[in-house]
Amino acid sequence: HHPIFPPPESESETSWVWTQIKAEARRDAESEPALATHLYSTILSHPSLDRSLSFHLANKLSSSTLLSTLLYDLFLLSFSSDPSLVSSAVADLLAVRHRDPACVSFSHCLLNYKGFLACQAQRVAHRLWLQSRLPMALALHSRIADVFAVDIHPAARIGKGVLFDHATGLVVGETAVIGNNVSILHHVTLGGTGKVGGDRHPKIGDGVLIGAGATVLGNVKIGEGAKIGAGSLVLIDVPPRTTAVGNPARLIGGKERPARHE
Amino acid sequence: HHPIFPPPESESETSWVWTQIKAEARRDAESEPALATHLYSTILSHPSLDRSLSFHLANKLSSSTLLSTLLYDLFLLSFSSDPSLVSSAVADLLAVRHRDPACVSFSHCLLNYKGFLACQAQRVAHRLWLQSRLPMALALHSRIADVFAVDIHPAARIGKGVLFDHATGLVVGETAVIGNNVSILHHVTLGGTGKVGGDRHPKIGDGVLIGAGATVLGNVKIGEGAKIGAGSLVLIDVPPRTTAVGNPARLIGGKERPARHE
Amino acid sequence: HHPIFPPPESESETSWVWTQIKAEARRDAESEPALATHLYSTILSHPSLDRSLSFHLANKLSSSTLLSTLLYDLFLLSFSSDPSLVSSAVADLLAVRHRDPACVSFSHCLLNYKGFLACQAQRVAHRLWLQSRLPMALALHSRIADVFAVDIHPAARIGKGVLFDHATGLVVGETAVIGNNVSILHHVTLGGTGKVGGDRHPKIGDGVLIGAGATVLGNVKIGEGAKIGAGSLVLIDVPPRTTAVGNPARLIGGKERPARHE
Repeated sequence: HHPIFPPPESESETSWVWTQIKAEARRDAESEPALATHLYSTILSHPSLDRSLSFHLANKLSSSTLLSTLLYDLFLLSFSSDPSLVSSAVADLLAVRHRDPACVSFSHCLLNYKGFLACQAQRVAHRLWLQSRLPMALALHSRIADVFAVDIHPAARIGKGVLFDHATGLVVGETAVIGNNVSILHHVTLGGTGKVGGDRHPKIGDGVLIGAGATVLGNVKIGEGAKIGAGSLVLIDVPPRTTAVGNPARLIGGKERPARHE
Repeated sequence: HHPIFPPPESESETSWVWTQIKAEARRDAESEPALATHLYSTILSHPSLDRSLSFHLANKLSSSTLLSTLLYDLFLLSFSSDPSLVSSAVADLLAVRHRDPACVSFSHCLLNYKGFLACQAQRVAHRLWLQSRLPMALALHSRIADVFAVDIHPAARIGKGVLFDHATGLVVGETAVIGNNVSILHHVTLGGTGKVGGDRHPKIGDGVLIGAGATVLGNVKIGEGAKIGAGSLVLIDVPPRTTAVGNPARLIGGKERPARHE
Repeated sequence: HHPIFPPPESESETSWVWTQIKAEARRDAESEPALATHLYSTILSHPSLDRSLSFHLANKLSSSTLLSTLLYDLFLLSFSSDPSLVSSAVADLLAVRHRDPACVSFSHCLLNYKGFLACQAQRVAHRLWLQSRLPMALALHSRIADVFAVDIHPAARIGKGVLFDHATGLVVGETAVIGNNVSILHHVTLGGTGKVGGDRHPKIGDGVLIGAGATVLGNVKIGEGAKIGAGSLVLIDVPPRTTAVGNPARLIGGKERPARHE
């Protein structure tokens, strides 16, 4: 379940992952002919990961007034203009495959993980936001929230190698920052306290794990490698490599001598 | 971010808001031509707020067996028969614009806020419920729950000027009542205890604020201007202008001398 | 609200329930002509419950690349090959009608309850999983998670007579088992602790009731007839007919002399 797959040095990581995805899709289409059309249109007919992802996201997020053709162009152009969007997607694919024991293949994640798909679409919305294309960024944000029940403000900054596991109900506010290699379960809120404006949402360090249903409120700092227990309500900073649990959350081991893991 | 915009006395509040919405949509269509078709079909082609809202809700809530044309007629007729539905929508638009720092314009709310859209559709379902048109009210309820992940029973009564912020996962039971100027975050449940039938859900007073993930169960009364903390489990009455936090929730300051805010 | 309706001995339970559903749909189509097309296409045009359910699920779960015709065939074939899928659906219909005071008719549940529909589709996905048709099982799982915001792994085993009330945000992991006559409210997680692989999810006994927003983590055993309070975080076994509440959950009455109900 947790394979190690360093890409051969002669190939880029992206092309290595894309090669795996196509091989998986061919194998699945053979074993399940009823899915062949689906796999052909979403993966096998495309020459590259960015085209496959653009097509799939455009179909998922389109509506009767936001046509899939418009969204397809938007995604394609974003991916080709900013290669870091594609490398972030690849880092996420590797993260999900490594960290989620329920993930059986890269194509499983690419086609079926709403957290993965919402994250890729949000990064495009974030790029539009930075280009001051607010109406388009917010229209995309709205479609992601409707279709995946994942509500990440387009202004929020998200690192690479993130896993939004299950993802339903995830809410991330406008001034939140999520570091690299973060894992966040479903029903998690990175929100504001409602008492202040401006920079008002959590900053999540690299390698943090946030359990299901945790609520982190305010401009608090969750340090590198910290763990937030399921169902916790966190209103305070959490030091690096420290675990916080409970409602309201306390640091395990006490504030003075917090338990550190790893 | 928190503009004050008293409508000029010579115009009604509804027409003033509609004028703003059209001006915003024209500005957005100009700055983002790719959205022009979307903005034209949802806003600019319509002569009034109720027509724009009917069109947008009908498209969002239609399915292969509940056609958008049927829903469009249903919404149009409801809005024209009961002007309080339109004035409630306007009060909600003003509330969202005032209270949510992430809301950038009225048209942003009208087009993109699932909490706003779910609330307008629920008010129409409530009207159908009061007219004993249960099958239609429940079909609409089901579509709102599918499309927005917002599950408000059509019998529930909702006041004016409400903000359902983020809204994903909101569940409101059959005999719940929500007052005017209430703000409710996502993942909030106004539910029953499962121990009694009949009048079994919470009554939320005017101006109450309920934080993300709070669960309020039973026929309890949350007094005017009270605040319920995020992640709280509330099984008791909360006096006016009092804050309740925790699982199970306690009143801050103790039951005898609760802290009162404002 | 809680009618008793033993099917006449001369008829099977399935055909009795189907007769009720058609009578309800005819009555509703007469009282609400605008819904007649919807009711005809989803119920009245079909000769049996499994055909009606297949048609309705296929329409709800189809996408631009997973056609409703393909899903209709898949559901039809599954139901006709495995009659226990149909009898489970009937047991669920009876359970919802008996236990949920907000359910007004069998057809209300069949057409509108996302928890009911997600459960029937998951049982088909589970059958595909057992037949080693993983790509199809996972594609179906993904559509159920997108459309209903209900995320039940296709490997999870679900008994008969279950009620997933409201259902939005329900997450059930790969090795979870849910017994017969279980009632689970919305936002409930039956998840893993993230610390172990393999058999890592909760086992829920017959007749258990799990309140809204409860999180049950790890390979713990929730005994027959136990009750888990809303918003609880359960990391321990709960003995039969015992109530657990709180974050973290404690057994009411203490571990030695837990309060038992009924």
